[in-house]
Amino acid sequence: MKPRPSNEDLWIGRWTRALRSFPRRGLRHGLGHDCAVLAPPSRGTDLVLKTDAIVEGVHFLRTTSARLVGRKALARTLSDLAAAGATPCAALVTAGCPDKKSAVRLQSVYRGLAQAARCWGVTIVGGETVRTRQLLLSVSMLGYVPHRFSPNRAGARPGHLLFVTGRLGGSWPRRHLTFTPRLAEGRWLARKKIPSAMMDLSDGLGADLPRLARTSRIGFRIFPEKLPCNPGIGARQAFTQGEDYELLFSVSRAKAARLKKNWPFATRLTEIGICLPARAGFHAGRLPLQGYDHLA
Amino acid sequence: MKPRPSNEDLWIGRWTRALRSFPRRGLRHGLGHDCAVLAPPSRGTDLVLKTDAIVEGVHFLRTTSARLVGRKALARTLSDLAAAGATPCAALVTAGCPDKKSAVRLQSVYRGLAQAARCWGVTIVGGETVRTRQLLLSVSMLGYVPHRFSPNRAGARPGHLLFVTGRLGGSWPRRHLTFTPRLAEGRWLARKKIPSAMMDLSDGLGADLPRLARTSRIGFRIFPEKLPCNPGIGARQAFTQGEDYELLFSVSRAKAARLKKNWPFATRLTEIGICLPARAGFHAGRLPLQGYDHLA
Repeated sequence: MKPRPSNEDLWIGRWTRALRSFPRRGLRHGLGHDCAVLAPPSRGTDLVLKTDAIVEGVHFLRTTSARLVGRKALARTLSDLAAAGATPCAALVTAGCPDKKSAVRLQSVYRGLAQAARCWGVTIVGGETVRTRQLLLSVSMLGYVPHRFSPNRAGARPGHLLFVTGRLGGSWPRRHLTFTPRLAEGRWLARKKIPSAMMDLSDGLGADLPRLARTSRIGFRIFPEKLPCNPGIGARQAFTQGEDYELLFSVSRAKAARLKKNWPFATRLTEIGICLPARAGFHAGRLPLQGYDHLA
Repeated sequence: MKPRPSNEDLWIGRWTRALRSFPRRGLRHGLGHDCAVLAPPSRGTDLVLKTDAIVEGVHFLRTTSARLVGRKALARTLSDLAAAGATPCAALVTAGCPDKKSAVRLQSVYRGLAQAARCWGVTIVGGETVRTRQLLLSVSMLGYVPHRFSPNRAGARPGHLLFVTGRLGGSWPRRHLTFTPRLAEGRWLARKKIPSAMMDLSDGLGADLPRLARTSRIGFRIFPEKLPCNPGIGARQAFTQGEDYELLFSVSRAKAARLKKNWPFATRLTEIGICLPARAGFHAGRLPLQGYDHLA
């Protein structure tokens, strides 16, 4: 007797077919085993870990292209790795699936995810599916960064200048699905040890900058007229709308001049403000210090 | 101006207070930064990655003790690491939170999770919270295993004997929340290179054994009368009920004798069947070859 695999096994077979992206040197076991096992990185390398989830009705809509949903799930996590100056390596993917229709849709989601993974050199090494009331995707990522080269949110000091990459605001309805995570820029900045602190902008500058400031125990002043806004977007929207996936970082004055001179990317680089002592507080002209609040 | 942190930031502050488990040598950045950064393991060690999620209404109930929910979320993932012979190291935790009441409950969930993490030597290095329609927890885990010592599901051969640890069946209503992941047993087995294939039992032997058999391209015969059943549980329930979190593994005849002689644990060890050539099919007497099907 050799029974038909269960519904779960049949669907997992379909989904993992879509996810088998490309083989990776040093991947000993991947999809289809209890755990993924992979060779460690070369010496002098730190491990970088990040997890990020997107949920139907919050981060994408029922009508959003399934492939772009998969792409976004991966690219969001990559944006965090960019802020750590890391090179992505391997990902685990968890999907929450409410019904048969979503199970079918998930095949396209996974195809989009696998395509994005190939594009950015990520191997999908494992994952799982659970029954949930709405479609959701959670991606956990392992990356690498040279030993002690990863910036974090804690190193900004009064007098350091604040920079952002790219342009801000107006990410819905389209760019939040098609943005390019600033991996190359983040890697370059980290390897040159330029940022004293760095993070990616996911909830909007008005929400994310206060987080960096609280972790670094600083105040700040933003110059609203300097904000690099997307076409048709005002400073207020650029400041408070989320999902920019640009890099925000602080740089000492000494390094800022060199940074502006040597910036090798086509991506726009803008000085938007300055770090102050904590007691000076947070200043952004008339812009409201808020962004997207997931639990408002 | 220094505004009050957003609701999201206030809740994240509360939750992460519960999660700060214990410092780890080599952890460079943890909670509160875009990514966790940690020193790599010593040479000769492979990385092990696993993700696992639990959902209210599927893996636990609204009335289940919040601390035990947190414990279960971590212990399930550890059970998979046990099957890979791995030592757990660091975890990322994603929570889906539907409302204020769940946000409060989540504090206790996180306390249970942190307590379990301390107990098993795991550091919570990152995570995030998203708005979902039901409470859910997803844990991604990094662990280590000596280079090329991790068993997988693919190595079982005809003639190998099948073993399980512990007793099966009757995991609801209580043991699925309080089970001990078989980390010590998995590590011992992997280091002695005893299993030709190994996995943990989460959906029931009747569903999980066919998975191991398909991956290894073998058939099998289970001896129902030999199944180690929990008190008051029949062979049929022991075979088809899920959430045992015991280890299932195959062993060559040569190694099986040594295994039975040298097994150093109080945990019960039972020979339950034999691997056959693939063409012989799957045999379990009158027991139905099925278990918990998440997508039935």
